[in-house]
Amino acid sequence: MHSDRKTVEVCYSPSQFPLYGSNFEIVVVIDVLRATSAITTALHKGVKEIIPVSSVEKAIEYRQRGFVVAAERDGKVVEGFDFGNSPYAFMAPELVGQTVVLTTTNGTKAIEVAKERMVVIGCLNNLSTICDWLLEQNKDVLVLASGWKEKMNLEDTICAGAIADRLIESRKFHSHEDSTIAAKFLFRSARDNMYSFLRSSSHRRRLMQLKIQEDVKYCLMVDTVPCIPVLRDGVLVKM
Amino acid sequence: MHSDRKTVEVCYSPSQFPLYGSNFEIVVVIDVLRATSAITTALHKGVKEIIPVSSVEKAIEYRQRGFVVAAERDGKVVEGFDFGNSPYAFMAPELVGQTVVLTTTNGTKAIEVAKERMVVIGCLNNLSTICDWLLEQNKDVLVLASGWKEKMNLEDTICAGAIADRLIESRKFHSHEDSTIAAKFLFRSARDNMYSFLRSSSHRRRLMQLKIQEDVKYCLMVDTVPCIPVLRDGVLVKM
Repeated sequence: MHSDRKTVEVCYSPSQFPLYGSNFEIVVVIDVLRATSAITTALHKGVKEIIPVSSVEKAIEYRQRGFVVAAERDGKVVEGFDFGNSPYAFMAPELVGQTVVLTTTNGTKAIEVAKERMVVIGCLNNLSTICDWLLEQNKDVLVLASGWKEKMNLEDTICAGAIADRLIESRKFHSHEDSTIAAKFLFRSARDNMYSFLRSSSHRRRLMQLKIQEDVKYCLMVDTVPCIPVLRDGVLVKM
Repeated sequence: MHSDRKTVEVCYSPSQFPLYGSNFEIVVVIDVLRATSAITTALHKGVKEIIPVSSVEKAIEYRQRGFVVAAERDGKVVEGFDFGNSPYAFMAPELVGQTVVLTTTNGTKAIEVAKERMVVIGCLNNLSTICDWLLEQNKDVLVLASGWKEKMNLEDTICAGAIADRLIESRKFHSHEDSTIAAKFLFRSARDNMYSFLRSSSHRRRLMQLKIQEDVKYCLMVDTVPCIPVLRDGVLVKM
């Protein structure tokens, strides 16, 4: 044990967040398919800011006030909203410079539970960018997987494991939790063929049924979007 | 999908139990280090029955009424009790034919949350015995890992993954949850050298500090105790 090392741990779902200590000053929220991939893409492509809200009711309020509002539940666009959490929808040129309100099944809930800490947004698209930044902070880091309705899911656990692995390999961080060991191990097993490894993932099967394979392929690409979204006063902006 | 197949899933901790459906008629409770290994050993060696209780307070009540009571918290025997959850303690000849009351940090809590279903006790020691029995039941099975204070732990997840893997390989069962896929994967990676794989496990490190390596070695032995404990009217007996 090197007592000067910082701690990094992986938490599998928002409901488990309270089990992890208050020492974690930075929380990295992960929802690979598709919320955090979409948020990172949006801010990189010029969306001004994203207001995450946890309920459809709040999203409706914002829409009534004239905001552009994206809403996803169970992998589908909620009826009456323009788009959901497809990263491609957030690349639309007319969104450049705009404020977008977003609610999703899992990702915005994870942001909500962590909002008293410093929240940054991670995904495979910005993996190295976020790891490099975390390595410079000298703070304890909790990687919070959004999961699927409070259960763990494979893709978020693997992405979280990738971040933990990178930080621990630097020798500036260590970990103590079995959840982190398992996530690192799953990442190392998956990294050479993420798409194949996730073939049996429940969430991917769910999305396959919705015929959004292009979104899945996009979200599984590593290091394609060098952008770190950060939550400031409840609003996600580019760091 | 074969609709005549039964379902087997792995749940990582008692607090996640309500997230899994009411279709699971059989719950296999796992606490490899050391509660379910000790329970299985005890009933195999001739202990008549074990009354699991979830609190130390209840354990004290039983002691005052003259019962033999075992109590463990945080890996240690609770002060004032004769023994904790070491499997070796349950092999004592004077316990043959006796009723023993038991409370532990995680295992008895898992039994408590599942008690409205049919509860059986699994561990590595009785792995094949319990799998063979489950294969004959034609019922949906939830394998409930006790974990460590509501977080997942490696040894219970691996044991649960071993059971799920065996049932799914028989083609009589299938699974839909990522928690089950991950557990199966961790088991397959660990199975050839369980002791080495668990070297970094947080719980094992904790027990190492308590100098109970002999217990750990015992609990990681596969198929050494052909006995299935079952909960009947709140009491664990040999099936």
